[in-house]
Amino acid sequence: MTITITAFESSPDRGKGLARDMRVRWALEEVGQPYDVRLVSFAEMKQPAHCALHPFGQIPTYEEGGLALFETGAIIFHIADRHAGLLPDEPNARARAITWMFAAVNTVEPPILDLVTVKLLEGDKPWAEQRLSLVQDRIRARLADLSAYLGDAEWLDGAFSAGDLMMVTVLLRLSASGLLVEYPNLAAYVARGEARPAYQRAFADQLAVFTAASTG
Amino acid sequence: MTITITAFESSPDRGKGLARDMRVRWALEEVGQPYDVRLVSFAEMKQPAHCALHPFGQIPTYEEGGLALFETGAIIFHIADRHAGLLPDEPNARARAITWMFAAVNTVEPPILDLVTVKLLEGDKPWAEQRLSLVQDRIRARLADLSAYLGDAEWLDGAFSAGDLMMVTVLLRLSASGLLVEYPNLAAYVARGEARPAYQRAFADQLAVFTAASTG
Repeated sequence: MTITITAFESSPDRGKGLARDMRVRWALEEVGQPYDVRLVSFAEMKQPAHCALHPFGQIPTYEEGGLALFETGAIIFHIADRHAGLLPDEPNARARAITWMFAAVNTVEPPILDLVTVKLLEGDKPWAEQRLSLVQDRIRARLADLSAYLGDAEWLDGAFSAGDLMMVTVLLRLSASGLLVEYPNLAAYVARGEARPAYQRAFADQLAVFTAASTG
Repeated sequence: MTITITAFESSPDRGKGLARDMRVRWALEEVGQPYDVRLVSFAEMKQPAHCALHPFGQIPTYEEGGLALFETGAIIFHIADRHAGLLPDEPNARARAITWMFAAVNTVEPPILDLVTVKLLEGDKPWAEQRLSLVQDRIRARLADLSAYLGDAEWLDGAFSAGDLMMVTVLLRLSASGLLVEYPNLAAYVARGEARPAYQRAFADQLAVFTAASTG
């Protein structure tokens, strides 16, 4: 069955690979599944046709035969659950890999998303600069714990898994902040993720969308 | 095999059931699995023994034989995956229920957690009051979408699932904010969750911990 995902027609990050379709593209490349992409504009995302697929009017969505899913973490889990390559077979190792998927989006990502709030949504407010340092310290607290846990390991729990895919893409949001380099083992961990051939293919594909849109 | 979870020795919410062990207790009650609780103090949570179980030094954790998990969403998924009652058998319905688990923690909960930031972590800052209304508006945007999606349905996707369990507990964090009552169908949805016998048993058990600690 054909897999179709949605992505921004015009990526707000100008092809840097930070939009969440990148996570789904990467997962599909890791398991070797071809897919189609339907591009949606910001206006289309809030229209009934798209909201029928995604109740919160966002991207990505995932369609496969009669199945329609939204929410990146759930899409990644679905791909990892149906295809070999992103979750271990051994039940306890599988449960631990899924743990890291949730930890990425529910423990590590929320303070990182606050960077968007302080810099973009509230960038014009008088408190922006003072809040920035508070937000950065909350991010550092999470990074310090994660760095201590990871130590010299290559991936979070044995072989590369969907948990690493989620964590690496969450940490990539810090690229412009200067925070990641304070934790060399986390910076190296993210670099290992980016070096994977599946990541490279996914990155090139999302960049091609931006390049085509800006030169077309 | 005995299941052991961890919970706050002294609950910061004074037994209101907002700590995340409540989510795990509720799930275990729904599937009829007995469990032990090990209480940890705030100091113990940051010690090496607990951090070996939970890299971010939080509660709850979950131990069962040789398996140790952290991160509430992952623990709920593990319980739902191993025991009947929280995820549908039909594969597409199961994938959709898991979607709502991720949507609860990654789309709906982050703006709600910002209420804690603005009221507690930054409650003494000069910008607290002005930021509060911005945060409330971001929460309302999510609630409006969720309310439109839910409509008159009893649960998010057919029968009660782990997705509802996660969403109800996320929305319960709004109880004191006055925001939930602006969306009567969401308020009724949360009340349906609270009325479930399994929720009631879990709530009573976590309240008993607080009562014992405060009278002991």
